[in-house]
Amino acid sequence: MPIVTVQQFPRSLEHKRELARRITEAFADVYGMPDDSVQVFFNEVDGENWAKGGVMGCDRPQAGRN
Amino acid sequence: MPIVTVQQFPRSLEHKRELARRITEAFADVYGMPDDSVQVFFNEVDGENWAKGGVMGCDRPQAGRN
Amino acid sequence: MPIVTVQQFPRSLEHKRELARRITEAFADVYGMPDDSVQVFFNEVDGENWAKGGVMGCDRPQAGRN
Amino acid sequence: MPIVTVQQFPRSLEHKRELARRITEAFADVYGMPDDSVQVFFNEVDGENWAKGGVMGCDRPQAGRN
Amino acid sequence: MPIVTVQQFPRSLEHKRELARRITEAFADVYGMPDDSVQVFFNEVDGENWAKGGVMGCDRPQAGRN
Amino acid sequence: MPIVTVQQFPRSLEHKRELARRITEAFADVYGMPDDSVQVFFNEVDGENWAKGGVMGCDRPQAGRN
Repeated sequence: MPIVTVQQFPRSLEHKRELARRITEAFADVYGMPDDSVQVFFNEVDGENWAKGGVMGCDRPQAGRN
Repeated sequence: MPIVTVQQFPRSLEHKRELARRITEAFADVYGMPDDSVQVFFNEVDGENWAKGGVMGCDRPQAGRN
Repeated sequence: MPIVTVQQFPRSLEHKRELARRITEAFADVYGMPDDSVQVFFNEVDGENWAKGGVMGCDRPQAGRN
Repeated sequence: MPIVTVQQFPRSLEHKRELARRITEAFADVYGMPDDSVQVFFNEVDGENWAKGGVMGCDRPQAGRN
Repeated sequence: MPIVTVQQFPRSLEHKRELARRITEAFADVYGMPDDSVQVFFNEVDGENWAKGGVMGCDRPQAGRN
Repeated sequence: MPIVTVQQFPRSLEHKRELARRITEAFADVYGMPDDSVQVFFNEVDGENWAKGGVMGCDRPQAGRN
């Protein structure tokens, strides 16, 4: 059943592919469950839809976006 | 209050209209509440943002996408 | 893949059983997918963790809780 | 840690900027925490992906969209 | 329609009451909508169900929990 | 910013500790970001609040719970 939802800045397909593989492997290893039980959703959010410290991501300097 | 969120592959408006109608009807019947108490959100996710078994939807054969 | 999340006040198991059955049936009918593709999560929230109109559910008269 | 997710109709950047500022300020005041602990996500949903009372937002008269 | 979900450490009812009031007021002011359109959900998470930097909250020193 | 939410059956703290460590490490490796940017939330759901195929988890045989 594990449903993993990742809220993040937009990333390349290669990055998401690699992350999904590693996250799924972690569940399979730690819980001893089949890979197919794990679903991963990426919910990508840009700087016009995310704020930290009350400042929108698009208004923050690049270095402050983590 | 019920808030229903549906994570799914993109679907046609007709499909979503029909689902929203039936989901709302189910709540109204089972809980005896007015239809207007029920809100349904569709959160559509494509194959580049979803993985099952560690494999992105866009890399899976069509038949394995459920 | 459909993942359905229901945010609602706490309800009896019988009610959730019936709703899960009907919601799943709606997806199977409308999308023509096998029942087993559909997962339903109930996320129950009590009146100390929900507000409408700026007033916590536990502070609202019973009739205003929908 | 507070993570605030706002599901809403699409709004202008100015509106979201102002809301993020005020929501963050509320947490900082009430909890006495640094602004930077607070993250706000806007998850915008249009009338083809939201229903109330079993009727999709795009099928409702403008006045019934709240 | 705005649905606001707050993921946070457990807090007192008084704190949540005050936050719900201020968050709702912010939406009513900025969007010019009636208070009753706004719902706030608190989803409280303890240190055994949250990690930052790969370390569970319950394993972090108190000062590092924000 | 990555916020990772895991919906799963209740698990031991040791399991969650190990998963949080490995998920965070995956983000740090793949995205080259500091560990502290990553937050993981566990949202545990029991068999009375989850259904697959229209059948509540608590009504399914143990083997069908993945």
